[in-house]
Amino acid sequence: MNAVTFLSPVTEEIKLVEARMRAQADEAHPDLRAALEHLLSAGGKRVRPTLGLLVGNMLGAPLEKLVTLGAAVELLHTATLVHDDLIDGSLLRRGTPTLNARWSPPATVLTGDFLFARAAKLAAETDHLPLMKLFSDTLAIIVNGELTQMFTSRGLVNRENYYRRIYAKTASLFEMTSRAAAMVSPVDEDTIESMRDFGYQIGMAFQIVDDILDFTGDQNAVGKPLGSDLLNGLVTLPGIYYAEVNPSDPDVLSLPQGGWTNNENMTRLVEKIRASSCTKKAMLEADGHIDRALARLEDMPASAERDALENLAKYIVDRKV
Amino acid sequence: MNAVTFLSPVTEEIKLVEARMRAQADEAHPDLRAALEHLLSAGGKRVRPTLGLLVGNMLGAPLEKLVTLGAAVELLHTATLVHDDLIDGSLLRRGTPTLNARWSPPATVLTGDFLFARAAKLAAETDHLPLMKLFSDTLAIIVNGELTQMFTSRGLVNRENYYRRIYAKTASLFEMTSRAAAMVSPVDEDTIESMRDFGYQIGMAFQIVDDILDFTGDQNAVGKPLGSDLLNGLVTLPGIYYAEVNPSDPDVLSLPQGGWTNNENMTRLVEKIRASSCTKKAMLEADGHIDRALARLEDMPASAERDALENLAKYIVDRKV
Repeated sequence: MNAVTFLSPVTEEIKLVEARMRAQADEAHPDLRAALEHLLSAGGKRVRPTLGLLVGNMLGAPLEKLVTLGAAVELLHTATLVHDDLIDGSLLRRGTPTLNARWSPPATVLTGDFLFARAAKLAAETDHLPLMKLFSDTLAIIVNGELTQMFTSRGLVNRENYYRRIYAKTASLFEMTSRAAAMVSPVDEDTIESMRDFGYQIGMAFQIVDDILDFTGDQNAVGKPLGSDLLNGLVTLPGIYYAEVNPSDPDVLSLPQGGWTNNENMTRLVEKIRASSCTKKAMLEADGHIDRALARLEDMPASAERDALENLAKYIVDRKV
Repeated sequence: MNAVTFLSPVTEEIKLVEARMRAQADEAHPDLRAALEHLLSAGGKRVRPTLGLLVGNMLGAPLEKLVTLGAAVELLHTATLVHDDLIDGSLLRRGTPTLNARWSPPATVLTGDFLFARAAKLAAETDHLPLMKLFSDTLAIIVNGELTQMFTSRGLVNRENYYRRIYAKTASLFEMTSRAAAMVSPVDEDTIESMRDFGYQIGMAFQIVDDILDFTGDQNAVGKPLGSDLLNGLVTLPGIYYAEVNPSDPDVLSLPQGGWTNNENMTRLVEKIRASSCTKKAMLEADGHIDRALARLEDMPASAERDALENLAKYIVDRKV
């Protein structure tokens, strides 16, 4: 399974999405155009626009609306990354210098704002009011999630909190994209609900796998040190499983009291989690989401797009980066 | 002329706008609610929502849409102030500590983002797609203006650049508010265009007067040192007039070469501008905008709202803060 398998039916259309994204800076200041170019060329697999294009093409949506939606979603995603990197003080993302590393914090704040503005403008250009509302609701969910994460004490071991967090951080945008693509298609409410859930499920799986890769991934490919979440006080699903099985482990007990600031202890805890079956358990949970997503596809019309969505869902749990 | 004169017809309705703004944080984290409360209670005269309410009431718009529009506009304005204060490192605004002074920069970035998200959500709740587009266009204009200001070399003495800057910074939102209030009213395109121009003219006057008050205002009331714009390398209309009349003044000549960083020289230049007729000339220009705004009101239906709009326009040039 590789990215090509799910991208192939929309390879050409993704280029239209990229062009639409780039066009958003056409009238902006040259430095801002250069920044946007830098952000867009840093890549990523364009999973979100691909999801929207595949769902919409499968269901008969007009291409123009899907391209606009895809560009809006990816710009929104890019805007949140720009502000995230600033907030975390990250200097690299996917091995490429962040905007934050190259620019001043003020310029970075404003570039993120500019991308928000352009994403909202694109969403409005779909000429679809419910989609527009969904878009602004999702933006509010994402930002509120980040704020909650910032205010919630680090080192918290709490399953409910974790699910809410990854929904806000990741699944909400996948859910919105898939749902919105169905909303602009000539289909009934049941189909829209199926596609909403499809997006939700693969979005939850996507973030769980990201959190697993933080323990098991190739550090060079992921571009972060092993266990970086835990070293930042963020307890993800593998750690939660570990804490549930080992409630009296002193490193686990130390977490809510700020034990996550102790680098040596956390490196040891990361090793214990890696040596345990907890990353596998977490992966089973991600697989469960993917199974529910695949079940949603069964009632959809047989097509190259449906096959590609199946591959996209499977890719999310199979990927190594 | 005082604020009461133009506020009175909509005093009760402004309370509805305030309630709608506060409600945006209802489901948010308690710390965020407190931050929003702090921002809203810091006051301001709610000139923008008042403008929207007066125009819409005069033209027969549904109150509900005007309240939603007013809350959207004021939240958007608040969001830009939050990020501005962060960017400038300002610790006080209107004599009250900024969010930036009380919170960490990351929390401030995210609070601004949250306000953007909620403003967009409110704009969508007007159920009016052209208004929604106008809203996102205006956000893009504002942010692009801030970025351009950041990238443009400080100390620039350029009239065109100045007008573009104050349009993006201030007049665009006044223009949008007045135009949008007309758009949701049962009126023809000519009336919408008149009200767009009314908003544009008072917005341009508003910022010109702000820039004059930076030279002539009561420092305690304005909450900034005298000539603070020039000390930050920002040459506004009084300075542009002065430079046009005194092109070989060494302090003027030094500006584009970074002379604005010399505090002693700039304090002297501020004094020279204050002693000249340049602030008066700038005020005449603001008066011209207000005259054009008042002319736009002549064809509007006679009403308490029209009178209040007249007072609002006059207040903008008469105010001392």
